[in-house]
Amino acid sequence: MSLLVVGSVALDTVRTPFGERQDALGGSATFASVAASFFTDVRLVGVIGDDFDPAHVELLRSHAIDLEGLERAPGRTFRWSGVYGHDLNERTTLDTQLNVFAAFDPRLPPRYAASEYVFLANVDPEVQLRVLEQIDRPRFVALDTMNFWIEGKPEPLRRILTRVDALLLNDSEARMLAGTGNLLRAAAAIRALGPQVLVIKRGEYGAVLFARDEVFSAPGFLLEEVFDPTGAGDTFAGGFMGYLAARGELSSAALRRAVIFGSALASFAVESFSVDRVHTLTHQEIAARFRAFQALTRFEDADLRGGR
Amino acid sequence: MSLLVVGSVALDTVRTPFGERQDALGGSATFASVAASFFTDVRLVGVIGDDFDPAHVELLRSHAIDLEGLERAPGRTFRWSGVYGHDLNERTTLDTQLNVFAAFDPRLPPRYAASEYVFLANVDPEVQLRVLEQIDRPRFVALDTMNFWIEGKPEPLRRILTRVDALLLNDSEARMLAGTGNLLRAAAAIRALGPQVLVIKRGEYGAVLFARDEVFSAPGFLLEEVFDPTGAGDTFAGGFMGYLAARGELSSAALRRAVIFGSALASFAVESFSVDRVHTLTHQEIAARFRAFQALTRFEDADLRGGR
Repeated sequence: MSLLVVGSVALDTVRTPFGERQDALGGSATFASVAASFFTDVRLVGVIGDDFDPAHVELLRSHAIDLEGLERAPGRTFRWSGVYGHDLNERTTLDTQLNVFAAFDPRLPPRYAASEYVFLANVDPEVQLRVLEQIDRPRFVALDTMNFWIEGKPEPLRRILTRVDALLLNDSEARMLAGTGNLLRAAAAIRALGPQVLVIKRGEYGAVLFARDEVFSAPGFLLEEVFDPTGAGDTFAGGFMGYLAARGELSSAALRRAVIFGSALASFAVESFSVDRVHTLTHQEIAARFRAFQALTRFEDADLRGGR
Repeated sequence: MSLLVVGSVALDTVRTPFGERQDALGGSATFASVAASFFTDVRLVGVIGDDFDPAHVELLRSHAIDLEGLERAPGRTFRWSGVYGHDLNERTTLDTQLNVFAAFDPRLPPRYAASEYVFLANVDPEVQLRVLEQIDRPRFVALDTMNFWIEGKPEPLRRILTRVDALLLNDSEARMLAGTGNLLRAAAAIRALGPQVLVIKRGEYGAVLFARDEVFSAPGFLLEEVFDPTGAGDTFAGGFMGYLAARGELSSAALRRAVIFGSALASFAVESFSVDRVHTLTHQEIAARFRAFQALTRFEDADLRGGR
C-alpha cells in the first residue's frame, strides 16, 4: 500500500565538524519520503517556494515519489540553518525562516483521501488535525511532534493523539509529554493518551518500541563516522512507515522489523549531508544493514550451568 | 571452573531519592562474587576490618563463596558514602575512608594460584599486577578500572592491559582511555593495548561487547523503579565472568550470552540497596530475566518487499 507523508520540504544550511553545506535539500517530508520510497509508493504533501531548485524536484521524482501534493507557492522555501558541536549530540539552530511554510495548511489532492498509511511529520498539531480530517479511513496513522508543540499547543496535540495509531518522538520529548523521567512509566502515560504504538528514539542509543504488551529495544548502529545527524529521525520514520505500508500488516513481528528498517535507514542518513547517502542506496545495501543489525543483537538460548 | 574475584569489600552508606541505608554490605568484590555465585564456585580475595559484621560474612558464606582469601586486618573496614540525584544518573561521593583497604596488597592462598578464571575488580593497577603474578596460568583474566587510574597511573595500567584477556569499563572511561569520543574507534584503540575482549558499559543504555571481529549490543533492561545503582557494574562483571567460568568456553556465542547474564544480574542489583535483591535470587528468576532480554531484542528475518 502507498504511504502519505505530510511535512516540511526545506533548504538546510548545516555546519558540522566535518564540513558545511548551503541550501541542501532537507525537511521532514523529504527525509521521510526518500527513505520510505525504498519500500513502497509515496505521496508527498508539502510546500516549496519559487526559489526551489528543479534538481531537488528531480531527485524526489527519481524515487517515484508522487508530487501532486507538493504545492508551489510564491515566495521563498522554508530555510533552516544550524551548527553541530564536536560530538554531534549538540545542535544549535542559527536561523529559521518559515517563508512559504508559515502558511502551510494543505488541501490534499482528492485521490489522496483514500490513503491507508499516513505519516504526519512534525508540524503544528492543528494543521495535522486538519490534514487527518481530509483522509477517509486511514488504516495506520503515525505522528511526530516536538517540545515546541508539547509546550505550546498541548490541547490540539492531545486531540490528535486520540486519533493516531502511532507516535514517534525522542526520549526527552517523551519525558516532557508524560511528565515523568522513567521510560516505562512515560510510555504507559503516553499510550493512555491514544497511540497504541509508541516509538521512543534515543539517538545514538537506538529506539524502543512499545506495542500491545510488548517492548522491543533496537540498538543504535555503531559507525566510525557520523557526518551529519540532520534528518535522522524523519528518515527513521520513513523507513518504519514505508516498511509497514509495504507489508500491509501490523503484527508485532512486522512492527519490530519496521523499527530495524527505520534504524537501518537512519544509520545511512547520518553518513552524509542531506539525503546524499540515502538517495544512492540500493536494496542490497539496506538488506546488508538489516543483517548487520541482526549480527549486532543476536544471542542464543542458554541454560544456567555450573556448580550452583 | 571456579572464578577468582579480587577487589574491595566495603560498608556503603547510600542515599537515593527512595531511601537511605547505613553501613550496607558493598564493595566491588562483594557485588561480583555474589552475582557469580549463581553460576560457579567463587573465591573472594579482599580485606575487612575488625568492625565487619559477622552477618555479612554469613551472607557471603551462604553463597558458598570461598573466603580463605578474605583477610581480616586490624582497623576499620573500607567505607564509602554517596548520594544519588533525582534521576539516579548523577552520583556524588560524600566520603571515602579507605581504612584497611589502603594497604590492600594481597598474598593469595597458595591453592588460588591454579585459578583459571580471574576477575580483577577496580583497584590500583600495580596491585592488580602483583595479584596476577601470583596466578600460574590463568585462562581468562578480566579487568575493571576507572578514570582515577587512567589519569593517575597510566603506565602500570598499560602494563597490566597487555596481560589481560578482557577489559570491562564504562563508556566515559573508554573514551578517556582511548582519547577519542567515537565508540568504535575507542574500542579499536583499547584492544590495541592488549585486551581482545572489551565490554563497554553504558548504564541504562546497556552494554557493548567487542570480541574478535564482532560487535554485540545488549540493551539496558527497562525497569519501572531503579532503586540504587550502586554495584551494578560489578554485579554485571560477576554475572559475565561467572557464566564464562561455568561454561568453560570462550566462543562468541558464550561471550554474548555472558553479556546478557551480566546485564540480567545487574538489572536485579539496581532494584534494591546493597546485594539485597541479588542475594535472594533464584535460578528461575535469572532464567526468566534472560528470556525477557530475548523478548526485548528478538526480531525475525525480513525480505524487502513492496512497490519499489
